[in-house]
Amino acid sequence: MIHASTAVIIALLMGIAGVAYVIWQLRRILDYDQGNDTMRSIAAAIQEGASAFLTREYRVLGIFVVIVAVVIATFLHWQTALAFVFGAIASAGAGYLGMYVAVRANVRTAAAASRGLHEGLRVAFGSGAIMGMSVVSFSLLGMTVLYLIFKGDPNQLVYLTGFGFGASSIALFARVGGGIYTKAADVGADLVGKVEKGIPEDDPRNPAVIADNVGDNVGDVAGMGADLFESYSGSIIAAATLGATLGGGATAAFIGLPFLVAAVGVISSLFGIYMVIGKQNDAMPAAGVPMGFSDVAVGLSSTAPATAGGLMGFLKRYVAKVDENATLEDLLTALRRSVWGASAVILGLSLVTVLLSGVSFNYWLVILVGLIAGNGIAYVTEHYTSYTEKPTQSIAKACQTGPATTIIQGVAVGMMSTVLPVLITAVAILLSIWLGHKADGSLTAGLYAVALAGVGMLSTLGVTLATDAYGPVADNAGGIAEMSSLPKEVRHRTDALDSLGNTTAATGKGFAIGSAVLTALALLAAYVSAAKIDTLHILGATMLPGILIGAMLPYLFSALTMSAVGKAAHAIVLEVRRQFQEIPGLMEGTAKPDYAACVGISTEGALKEMIIPGTMAVVVPLVVGFVLGKEALAGLLIGTTASGFLLAVMMANAGGAWDNAKKWIETGQYGGKGSEAHKAAVVGDTVGDPFKDTSGPSLNILIKLMSIVSLVFAGAFGSGWFNF
Amino acid sequence: MIHASTAVIIALLMGIAGVAYVIWQLRRILDYDQGNDTMRSIAAAIQEGASAFLTREYRVLGIFVVIVAVVIATFLHWQTALAFVFGAIASAGAGYLGMYVAVRANVRTAAAASRGLHEGLRVAFGSGAIMGMSVVSFSLLGMTVLYLIFKGDPNQLVYLTGFGFGASSIALFARVGGGIYTKAADVGADLVGKVEKGIPEDDPRNPAVIADNVGDNVGDVAGMGADLFESYSGSIIAAATLGATLGGGATAAFIGLPFLVAAVGVISSLFGIYMVIGKQNDAMPAAGVPMGFSDVAVGLSSTAPATAGGLMGFLKRYVAKVDENATLEDLLTALRRSVWGASAVILGLSLVTVLLSGVSFNYWLVILVGLIAGNGIAYVTEHYTSYTEKPTQSIAKACQTGPATTIIQGVAVGMMSTVLPVLITAVAILLSIWLGHKADGSLTAGLYAVALAGVGMLSTLGVTLATDAYGPVADNAGGIAEMSSLPKEVRHRTDALDSLGNTTAATGKGFAIGSAVLTALALLAAYVSAAKIDTLHILGATMLPGILIGAMLPYLFSALTMSAVGKAAHAIVLEVRRQFQEIPGLMEGTAKPDYAACVGISTEGALKEMIIPGTMAVVVPLVVGFVLGKEALAGLLIGTTASGFLLAVMMANAGGAWDNAKKWIETGQYGGKGSEAHKAAVVGDTVGDPFKDTSGPSLNILIKLMSIVSLVFAGAFGSGWFNF
Repeated sequence: MIHASTAVIIALLMGIAGVAYVIWQLRRILDYDQGNDTMRSIAAAIQEGASAFLTREYRVLGIFVVIVAVVIATFLHWQTALAFVFGAIASAGAGYLGMYVAVRANVRTAAAASRGLHEGLRVAFGSGAIMGMSVVSFSLLGMTVLYLIFKGDPNQLVYLTGFGFGASSIALFARVGGGIYTKAADVGADLVGKVEKGIPEDDPRNPAVIADNVGDNVGDVAGMGADLFESYSGSIIAAATLGATLGGGATAAFIGLPFLVAAVGVISSLFGIYMVIGKQNDAMPAAGVPMGFSDVAVGLSSTAPATAGGLMGFLKRYVAKVDENATLEDLLTALRRSVWGASAVILGLSLVTVLLSGVSFNYWLVILVGLIAGNGIAYVTEHYTSYTEKPTQSIAKACQTGPATTIIQGVAVGMMSTVLPVLITAVAILLSIWLGHKADGSLTAGLYAVALAGVGMLSTLGVTLATDAYGPVADNAGGIAEMSSLPKEVRHRTDALDSLGNTTAATGKGFAIGSAVLTALALLAAYVSAAKIDTLHILGATMLPGILIGAMLPYLFSALTMSAVGKAAHAIVLEVRRQFQEIPGLMEGTAKPDYAACVGISTEGALKEMIIPGTMAVVVPLVVGFVLGKEALAGLLIGTTASGFLLAVMMANAGGAWDNAKKWIETGQYGGKGSEAHKAAVVGDTVGDPFKDTSGPSLNILIKLMSIVSLVFAGAFGSGWFNF
Repeated sequence: MIHASTAVIIALLMGIAGVAYVIWQLRRILDYDQGNDTMRSIAAAIQEGASAFLTREYRVLGIFVVIVAVVIATFLHWQTALAFVFGAIASAGAGYLGMYVAVRANVRTAAAASRGLHEGLRVAFGSGAIMGMSVVSFSLLGMTVLYLIFKGDPNQLVYLTGFGFGASSIALFARVGGGIYTKAADVGADLVGKVEKGIPEDDPRNPAVIADNVGDNVGDVAGMGADLFESYSGSIIAAATLGATLGGGATAAFIGLPFLVAAVGVISSLFGIYMVIGKQNDAMPAAGVPMGFSDVAVGLSSTAPATAGGLMGFLKRYVAKVDENATLEDLLTALRRSVWGASAVILGLSLVTVLLSGVSFNYWLVILVGLIAGNGIAYVTEHYTSYTEKPTQSIAKACQTGPATTIIQGVAVGMMSTVLPVLITAVAILLSIWLGHKADGSLTAGLYAVALAGVGMLSTLGVTLATDAYGPVADNAGGIAEMSSLPKEVRHRTDALDSLGNTTAATGKGFAIGSAVLTALALLAAYVSAAKIDTLHILGATMLPGILIGAMLPYLFSALTMSAVGKAAHAIVLEVRRQFQEIPGLMEGTAKPDYAACVGISTEGALKEMIIPGTMAVVVPLVVGFVLGKEALAGLLIGTTASGFLLAVMMANAGGAWDNAKKWIETGQYGGKGSEAHKAAVVGDTVGDPFKDTSGPSLNILIKLMSIVSLVFAGAFGSGWFNF
């Protein structure tokens, strides 16, 4: 049996190894060539915009974090407040690092693409790997250090919930604010540039073009990263909390298991990343790194893969070989193999872990269930949003009869696409509860198993997130190649990399919502246990109102975020129009637009508009918990999770399918670009933008944040004003 | 204390009184003038089409009813099967009668409008009143007769649930089939007529114009009537079933109370109807009616209002006076006053009822809560869908920037419009449970109160349904006036009556979904009681999968119904194009189109496309109940009700708001008809059509039908295959 403390220390070491890898990879990426002067100056503008947004956002966040920390310290414990601050800093740090490298890797990817497709893939994917590994290792480091600080205190796991709350708070602002930013800039740039002025996408004359490129990073790198940071931390915290309530002599093993699975997940992720990037040293300076801290780091990082050295040697020949003539399918296969490879490794390592922990073999099956469910949802998402498949093609067909049928068909496809993800999740939950129940004979063991399935699903996050976060880098690289008029074959390569990114972005969204649901349910189970709720009758006095109000919140939240995009985009439109009017020579390309003004307006708008939905997510559970009581709050969480899951999948997939239906038509179907069908498809794509990039993904945060707030304040709720 | 048997006999008598009123009113309407020959021939075509659809639909239904009745008789009891057949016949009968008079009142309304606005209102509203009173009295008659047949059998209320199931089955086909029919015909007629051929709405050259007019009746008269028949019967059955489980000596009073409230509701409804129609005999032949049965009927019907004679005399001066210069607001006020008047009467009479029954005064408060909630939801619906209010105007404003922003803003408004209806419902449930709990100290009493609130909300259904079912008659009258080129001032009057119908249709939808939710929850509570489920832990082993799958079903159902409209509309488009091509002189107006072909295609399409979603609604609860067990089924029902409520409100209100945003622009805003904004608004309106008239309202049926199926089979479910 492996004791919890041992497990935590192993996890801490793997966290350190992950950080070391991040530093090593970061230095490698930064050493790459940045291309010509035009490319550098465009990249500099994007970097400046990104940094401006993050600085402003973190300032707002700083205030929020201080206020909430004081509230927590006053009403709960200073330890929880400390954990909260830790969580916020860890998540913000990972997000900052991911953005920092993404806005530097974009120009390097463009430059590398001049030398070949695989070179470009390596740089862009390397940047994604930094985001993925930062999330995983910062989360592990934060939680394990806190665990060790609080060691011996019986409330140690209660305090740890604060870490999840801190991470969730950052995720809220990153996802909601980032989602508003990215779509306001996108829609604003398109409405004036493409529609009114007739200039192409990514044209440097468009004053909003830099804001648009910044937005890709803000939304898809920082936003997605913070979202999954929250799921990753939340599922581990929920599993540990539930594990602590499991009886028998194995309690310590139950607490330790999620940490151990996460720890061996770091190894699996590094293996998966290696399968894409391969031996990187070809184009690089000597691997020796000068600085002290980094020396240690590199030492550790070479140790980490070394533990699986024989295996890696054996599998070396499977490392992705991407040649010049690679199709989208080849590139996809390269990425898929890395995720599958990582999954294979984690299954082996976690089997060892489960056996050494001395818990039932069933828990290994639970991890397997989680992994299969995650990949299954991603696969279904791809089916519904890829233009090589029937659903998206049915939308393209509907484009022939105009925008109305385009929208109706898209909504129908989005709704239909919820069926399989829900069934997969339901079966995964049922099997997990059943396996846990069989192993240890209690419902709590079953719910622990659900949390563990979530940990399993997210164990290879280091590499799955890398495949997501790679997308915007490739997208930006394409923009930079376009704006700096690089040769045609370079543009072709960046296009190929960009298409790949679009596909992985869609599947990433499916994975993100699936893991969010498991995490939210696990946190809910932990809440019910922590609030010491004895009876939770589904028809209980306050339960039905709780469920109904809960089911309504995702609709309110989505209405707010969608309106926010509209308002912020409107402000951009006015500014872009003003610049075209007032700056002489802008249209002719003889004068430069004021990019910073648009970046400023996007930033301003996003930060302002995220306040109300953000506050709502934190305040509503507290109000319901205090007024209607802790039972009603459980109902509220169930209602929000179920309703939010459905709405999020529907919006994300409808949006993805509209986007790709347009791309399908652009390949020449139904008259191709410029046809009536294409115009209808553009309407669908524009409607889909806030669906898939703002409102849909924001719901992931809503459901997790509400659960973690409830868990943190679980001890404070009573039976409410209505005493039955 | 009034015993259940006494209450049931009173309800039976009021049911007979209602039938008598229906017969009397029917004869009055049929005696009205039918206008000139053109009008008569158009009306005949609509009548023929409606009759063709109903005959075909009822044939399919007949087969379904026989199969299900045999299944019920085999696996449960022959008594339940008998009740099922009764319920189906009663609902189908009410629907048939409502349609029968609606397709005859339309031409008479057009003719009456030649004589004045109030005359037109009287005929159209009189037709609606027949639908409203048929629903109420057929339901009461059916349930009370069954109650008396089964008297003395301890399972008497269990058998009665079959009546609700029968009514639900009819509602399913009427709502789903009717919803598909009406929108397929509407969209098909518009796409070729308005868009391709450039001929106006309701042009007799359009081969689909008759199908379109038939569709209005099929969807909004028969569909809406069957929907509310189901709610009305379901809430009474649920209340009686829960009342039977309440202890103390008052059990019989608890069972009787819902019947009594419904019985006095008949009086209130007749009063409300009187307030709109007033003294009708002006334009009529002598009131003496020749036939024997009707003689009795008239005798009874004059008795019924006579019981409240003094009150009516006193209130006579409040009867609506609608003069020639009446604005939409005046007309609305006339209808509103009738609903308010009926509500005032029911409050007085139900107070007497509650006091005489000997149950707690709290139950009167519960009825009050139900009435306020119903009217509150209708009011909110009007706010969100009326073009005199900000939400709909915000959509019109978004039309200026094209169809994409129109859709986004409409979805945002639809989502936002869910907030208040959910809060109103949640508060109504909370208060009901609280009041019931305070009165009789048990959760069951609280759930009984929820069912009673539903009965209260629906007690004045006779008149509220009259205001809904009036709409399509006025709409048809306008179409007939247009097609037969009646003078301009007549067309103005029918337009005014039509506008009124559009507004009441939107509020009617809000009321329908609100009552559906209360009914479904009451049926769920009855199911939980009947299935003898002891513990329903919200995190129970099979509960979470049940809830998630339940929340998904409305999305699947909506996707299916939305696609069905698309397919059926496509078939109509092809047929209309064919006729314009192959019939020489059609466009010039020298040849007549083949209306029957389009009617046949709509009928065919609707009947074919309703099979899969319809079967799903019946089969899924059974599968879940047997495979996952009775607890999971409770979770499934909760999930479907909560998720379906939200989706239905969102779709209905977004659709209504898009429709009226278009109408707002047509009043001259943002460039009026023909402007770019108007084109965008038309896209919104077309997207909204299946939202508000097919998929949205079908969800009302889904949630109630699943609950009643579960209740009927409650005794047959075990703990499922997963034994924990």
